[in-house]
Amino acid sequence: MTNNMIRVALIGSTGYTALEVARLLLAHGKAELTVATSRSDEGKPLSEIHPSLAGRCDIALQPFDPEQIAKQADVAMCCLPHGASAESVRDLASAGIRVIDFSADFRLSSVPLYEQWYGVTHPWPERVGNVVYGMPEFFAQEIATADVVANPGCYPTSAIMPLAPLVRAGLIQTDDIIIDSKSGVSGAGRSPKLGTLYCEANESISAYSIASHRHGPEMQDLIHRISGKTVDVLFTPHLTPMDRGILSTMYARPELQKGDTVESVKARLMAELRETYRDQPFIHVVDHLPATKHVVMTNHVQMTVRVAGPSDAPGRVIIVCAIDNLSKGASGAAIQNMNVMFGVDQMMGL
Amino acid sequence: MTNNMIRVALIGSTGYTALEVARLLLAHGKAELTVATSRSDEGKPLSEIHPSLAGRCDIALQPFDPEQIAKQADVAMCCLPHGASAESVRDLASAGIRVIDFSADFRLSSVPLYEQWYGVTHPWPERVGNVVYGMPEFFAQEIATADVVANPGCYPTSAIMPLAPLVRAGLIQTDDIIIDSKSGVSGAGRSPKLGTLYCEANESISAYSIASHRHGPEMQDLIHRISGKTVDVLFTPHLTPMDRGILSTMYARPELQKGDTVESVKARLMAELRETYRDQPFIHVVDHLPATKHVVMTNHVQMTVRVAGPSDAPGRVIIVCAIDNLSKGASGAAIQNMNVMFGVDQMMGL
Amino acid sequence: MTNNMIRVALIGSTGYTALEVARLLLAHGKAELTVATSRSDEGKPLSEIHPSLAGRCDIALQPFDPEQIAKQADVAMCCLPHGASAESVRDLASAGIRVIDFSADFRLSSVPLYEQWYGVTHPWPERVGNVVYGMPEFFAQEIATADVVANPGCYPTSAIMPLAPLVRAGLIQTDDIIIDSKSGVSGAGRSPKLGTLYCEANESISAYSIASHRHGPEMQDLIHRISGKTVDVLFTPHLTPMDRGILSTMYARPELQKGDTVESVKARLMAELRETYRDQPFIHVVDHLPATKHVVMTNHVQMTVRVAGPSDAPGRVIIVCAIDNLSKGASGAAIQNMNVMFGVDQMMGL
Amino acid sequence: MTNNMIRVALIGSTGYTALEVARLLLAHGKAELTVATSRSDEGKPLSEIHPSLAGRCDIALQPFDPEQIAKQADVAMCCLPHGASAESVRDLASAGIRVIDFSADFRLSSVPLYEQWYGVTHPWPERVGNVVYGMPEFFAQEIATADVVANPGCYPTSAIMPLAPLVRAGLIQTDDIIIDSKSGVSGAGRSPKLGTLYCEANESISAYSIASHRHGPEMQDLIHRISGKTVDVLFTPHLTPMDRGILSTMYARPELQKGDTVESVKARLMAELRETYRDQPFIHVVDHLPATKHVVMTNHVQMTVRVAGPSDAPGRVIIVCAIDNLSKGASGAAIQNMNVMFGVDQMMGL
Repeated sequence: MTNNMIRVALIGSTGYTALEVARLLLAHGKAELTVATSRSDEGKPLSEIHPSLAGRCDIALQPFDPEQIAKQADVAMCCLPHGASAESVRDLASAGIRVIDFSADFRLSSVPLYEQWYGVTHPWPERVGNVVYGMPEFFAQEIATADVVANPGCYPTSAIMPLAPLVRAGLIQTDDIIIDSKSGVSGAGRSPKLGTLYCEANESISAYSIASHRHGPEMQDLIHRISGKTVDVLFTPHLTPMDRGILSTMYARPELQKGDTVESVKARLMAELRETYRDQPFIHVVDHLPATKHVVMTNHVQMTVRVAGPSDAPGRVIIVCAIDNLSKGASGAAIQNMNVMFGVDQMMGL
Repeated sequence: MTNNMIRVALIGSTGYTALEVARLLLAHGKAELTVATSRSDEGKPLSEIHPSLAGRCDIALQPFDPEQIAKQADVAMCCLPHGASAESVRDLASAGIRVIDFSADFRLSSVPLYEQWYGVTHPWPERVGNVVYGMPEFFAQEIATADVVANPGCYPTSAIMPLAPLVRAGLIQTDDIIIDSKSGVSGAGRSPKLGTLYCEANESISAYSIASHRHGPEMQDLIHRISGKTVDVLFTPHLTPMDRGILSTMYARPELQKGDTVESVKARLMAELRETYRDQPFIHVVDHLPATKHVVMTNHVQMTVRVAGPSDAPGRVIIVCAIDNLSKGASGAAIQNMNVMFGVDQMMGL
Repeated sequence: MTNNMIRVALIGSTGYTALEVARLLLAHGKAELTVATSRSDEGKPLSEIHPSLAGRCDIALQPFDPEQIAKQADVAMCCLPHGASAESVRDLASAGIRVIDFSADFRLSSVPLYEQWYGVTHPWPERVGNVVYGMPEFFAQEIATADVVANPGCYPTSAIMPLAPLVRAGLIQTDDIIIDSKSGVSGAGRSPKLGTLYCEANESISAYSIASHRHGPEMQDLIHRISGKTVDVLFTPHLTPMDRGILSTMYARPELQKGDTVESVKARLMAELRETYRDQPFIHVVDHLPATKHVVMTNHVQMTVRVAGPSDAPGRVIIVCAIDNLSKGASGAAIQNMNVMFGVDQMMGL
Repeated sequence: MTNNMIRVALIGSTGYTALEVARLLLAHGKAELTVATSRSDEGKPLSEIHPSLAGRCDIALQPFDPEQIAKQADVAMCCLPHGASAESVRDLASAGIRVIDFSADFRLSSVPLYEQWYGVTHPWPERVGNVVYGMPEFFAQEIATADVVANPGCYPTSAIMPLAPLVRAGLIQTDDIIIDSKSGVSGAGRSPKLGTLYCEANESISAYSIASHRHGPEMQDLIHRISGKTVDVLFTPHLTPMDRGILSTMYARPELQKGDTVESVKARLMAELRETYRDQPFIHVVDHLPATKHVVMTNHVQMTVRVAGPSDAPGRVIIVCAIDNLSKGASGAAIQNMNVMFGVDQMMGL
């Protein structure tokens, strides 16, 4: 261990996002994994749970002891289920360790909204609405000094990044937005369930949680936080036969200006996105139609805009955005947040 | 060969739809493949082009000779590219053989619409608008006596089947319909191209031909033909990492009645679809959210309806429909059409 | 229900082989599903467990009551785990219903061999060694009159079909046979387990149970039963990222004759296989190298032979055989057995 | 560009190995891509050919001009087809630039062996047998000073790494080795061909080039070069439905010692492999059975040993080795070689 390395604790180590953190840290020159906890597999080496780490990461799983962890690590990445996560985040923060929380527990602005959608009493309500949303493209300054960061949801990342700037600039209408998202199966986690068995999910696509997925309110809440405007989104997620990646195809109405054509609307929206992300190394506004394969296994985002309608009557804006749900949609974003929190180049290790 | 068997000629035998026809005929008790043509592979056994037929179908590929084929077969299934197909259909029909055309050449209602979208001069314009669309659920009577049947497109089948009855019954608005479709890769055909290589299409999803795919006007044309109403659809197809299957997720606005709730709207639309398809053996209006895996390798269709919005202010109807693009979206529909044309049980062999 | 239909009871209805039986029976002109049992889902429609049956098979799951089932069905297909299966088979047979058992409980020749490999006390030892192995290509006569049929294992089918005739004819050495098999994931069943989650099995291949899989002794036992010779096989199964299909690549030493060349050995082995299976409608000895895609969703088998070595010193025979593990490797074979048992064309419904 | 960066030229930029080199260099702290050539796409940005590089690598494709490239780069990675590659390698070396050749042109020890298997006249026969094989685990010293490095084949890497040390130590017999390998589809390259279309390769596994693949002699040649012993291998490659990864399952006979048991043989072989690779950061001798998923997207190798036979009569050794065909089997190895050639940590960027 080098003296100047950021020491990272992984809280809840058995899932895919935890593995992705461990994997990314192996190639990170200025941070290293020093702690990994697990209730169920205490004492085992992390590489027994994740055989791809064999010979590469020999850390042993330890129980969750915040005081102890605070001595061993500078930052904790908390990969626990919602509810349970908030408790651990509170205990870690109390022990003086900075925390990046992968759960949804601190993403929403209000306790009632959280409790309506997650169906549990929030264990640390004082901090709800008072934790920065870990999207450095919009909140880098607050992240830099934060004690707790709410790491964004995967679907919300794919929707907020293109929509928030367009809403903020008044380029699309706020009350008619449809988000049709397609996610790889890793988004459903690593607990054995019938629906995510290979022979159920393979060679098949299906919609789920239509108009009732928890990421819908997260999208609305964050677009509001970034743009100052209230939006209404209809969100349909789909389970897609691939390991990783989210493609969101979004439909909105343009705010038209006099003399607008399909081409002028497209140009204006593309320009706004390009301007917004000009200095953001991970966000790419591209001319081609992005595929998830263009971004998986990276922290990068590709997005583009199309406009439908007769040339002189642009009717509908179609926005396509591709991310890796496990990287920019989870663990990559967490590493990026950590980099911002500890003052190193935000691309380090990504 | 049994005396009473329907004798089928396959015109253009090297692609996936042709293989699917051959495969289905092997299990069809009242029809058999007697001719298979190919320009490029004349003389070879069909099973050399499609090794899954080895030992099961030993027919040899022959050149395209309409007079000859008329002696050998009762019906021709024409699996050629658009333009080329219309010419062959004309020649086969002139030779007195009934034809099921897999191309788009006779699907649209007017020559200008066809030439605008397909960019070629139509070789047999007299018959455009004068050929039945091969969807027995709506046009069985005309199919029964037709000399030429225009076999439906794959995406249009998935969209027309749920949308046309709802438009016809005045249950959804006609000017705000979005069709977000996800298709397996077989829809792109069997000619080697970069985009359909395994390593390009696997583990990736992407949109293509946004608001510019030729199946958009086909959907509009047929919904109009069935419902008598002009509709405007925005159609986005996606290439999905699976062999077969189409899932179309459709978004529309309900025509509301006084006192409507989310539940009442859903019930009304489901009832309309159930009533429409009550006697149709292949169409299933289901409560669950269909996955393509529920229908691939069959001629069956599963569809359902959801409604979004606050309970007392239903805002948007979401319709999901799953089909197998190669079966009900192509070769299964052709067999079904053939069954209707020759007066056998329409489920025979399907 | 037609009077002359074979009435089929499905015992244990929630797995993939049960679904495959139900699916195949829907297209079988002379048999129909009349009973489906399940301990865990009693009362539910079968189509709730298998949504692909929605609107196609509305039978309700009932408890396991042999006396009752004997009144409702002519044959029972028993899809239970080993041990449990033998008990049910005994009770069904005692109630006077003919049984096709999908488990391994009656496949092996002796109780000690069974108990050594399956680690349980056999519930009905009297019948072990006294039940026909359900491979009509070798045992059709006994199957025709059997009260109980032991449906073959999937891997054994892919190995026995090419190896047994070659061993019987003295064309390959018996003591140096390696069977390297690759199976689709459906072979592992439908119970949620970490190893068969989509994100574990997808995009990955791995060996398991090397030299210790229970299908090894089954192969040896049956090759002995068919050929009269004792063989020693080394069997390595692999989990392959696909739903269905088994490809077995087998390595053996030829029994050489004077003047043999690579070509003469290949010709002799191919001729023996062609002769053996000349009248068998499902078995195809092909020139090309079979792929699992050529046989999945069918009851057909493709096999071929290659010989390695300098042309004048043939050293090793390589045999490749492809089957569908769920069809010829399980449910298709069961339907074929049923056809033989009830005197209908063995290809009926397949 | 930093002064001390290794400047890399990519010769032939349109394939998967070229993309992998570009991708790896983006994360390499001490090397950067300065040149990319292409005959067919001159002038285009590399990211147009490989959209995953959009916004990340803006280099434009240039024609192949060795003198010019020698000014722009310190090392050339030559990703051309065999035959064509040897010519370019010669011209680049003559221009004074060090070369890592991805083709097979300089891997084999003799011109006749090369010309027998590759069917072309070698353009630079003087150097055949006189170029180091780019496997730093065995040839690091020669690589460090080499002007030309022959980057190893993918299948040979997976076979040589476990077999060569065991042969060298006299632990397995040399005349009875079977290598049954399963490769992802990227190994077949990026040129559109029927066999590598998604719908042909997906959901299917098949053997090809049985006992006639060019990597067989490469394995024999290199095992001889490393161990000093002549071996005879029988090699069967399989096309497996996954993007990346090779799993080789190998069968050999142990050289037995008095009193040997299955356990003692396994322990001796594992110990030999562990000792051989003790200081090699990428090679992991593991207890579990490796899956390709454990190593894809990394330069790491996992291998293990099993022994079959009655406990007191060990009969056959089974060795399993997993690599990523595009990384350790191609581009990762090339980066590792470059690191050794330029004196930086061999794990840099990997």
